[in-house]
Amino acid sequence: MFKGVGQKTAQRMALELISFSEDKVQSFSNELIKAKSTIKYCQTCFFLSLSDHCNICMDNHRNSSTLCVVSDPKDVIAIEQSKSFKGKYHVLGGLISPLDGVYPEMLRVKELIARIRSGVQDLILALSPTVEGDTTAMYIQERCKADTLSIYKLAQGIPIGADLAYLDEVTIDKAFQGMIKL
Amino acid sequence: MFKGVGQKTAQRMALELISFSEDKVQSFSNELIKAKSTIKYCQTCFFLSLSDHCNICMDNHRNSSTLCVVSDPKDVIAIEQSKSFKGKYHVLGGLISPLDGVYPEMLRVKELIARIRSGVQDLILALSPTVEGDTTAMYIQERCKADTLSIYKLAQGIPIGADLAYLDEVTIDKAFQGMIKL
Repeated sequence: MFKGVGQKTAQRMALELISFSEDKVQSFSNELIKAKSTIKYCQTCFFLSLSDHCNICMDNHRNSSTLCVVSDPKDVIAIEQSKSFKGKYHVLGGLISPLDGVYPEMLRVKELIARIRSGVQDLILALSPTVEGDTTAMYIQERCKADTLSIYKLAQGIPIGADLAYLDEVTIDKAFQGMIKL
Repeated sequence: MFKGVGQKTAQRMALELISFSEDKVQSFSNELIKAKSTIKYCQTCFFLSLSDHCNICMDNHRNSSTLCVVSDPKDVIAIEQSKSFKGKYHVLGGLISPLDGVYPEMLRVKELIARIRSGVQDLILALSPTVEGDTTAMYIQERCKADTLSIYKLAQGIPIGADLAYLDEVTIDKAFQGMIKL
């Protein structure tokens, strides 16, 4: 049922469950049901929310003309923790991957285009630098080429704390291509 | 003796050694002695070399006015594999780290300054984005502030294939700072 929990782990957890008190199991089950019933998707950006619109979309101090496009809610959490971005988000709900059965029409691209046309000036494609991420970025670029907006992608290069000698060739190449004058 | 080989691994290797044929041990030992006696440091860039000057320094097709400063010979190998760089190298032999007893005068900075003054125009500091790497980069910048040359550092950002959600905050922040217009 859960990714990363195989047969053995599931069995270990099931046996552990039996040793818990009835109260504990009852309250745990209730919390699961509550989480499932109260947490929904924001109707604007599709991030997780307790109400129809998430706290980020409702925050008037954030710039609505800059949209950061991400694949999943967990990307929003990571970017928010880094405090790098003061605009609003749009969660696609995945990345294009025909091999895994994910096609463009299954992502929230239609909703993104509608938001862009309601006054977005800058679009930051914060998608992972993988085949799926790059394909999705190209697809979105193609879809909004008629719109007058600036599209950006995140810098690719050496992650903080990494040892240069153990990085892959493509990352080193990107780091050289994007080198910064001091 | 070797990093990463603890007592148990060493014991396993020692016992395995006894099972080898005498010829094999003899030829392995000879190779070790040969490697140690024939591989030396290039007198110009301090990369590994079989002669006084390494193949990279001797290659006239490479641009001598651009110098890529790295910490260790293994960084040269990684950058060469990525085919990103067509200039020459300078291997410092470590990074400044007073806690580990590595001070600036123990690195090949004097030799680097001499090379810079003999006609280098661009200096790329390809040092790892760690405390030690950043300190060393600042020290070199300070040492050549009187010289007329352009100093660059490698792009910092998201490595290829990485999942955005699992990167550290500082890397995400650098990726936003360095974002590229498409």
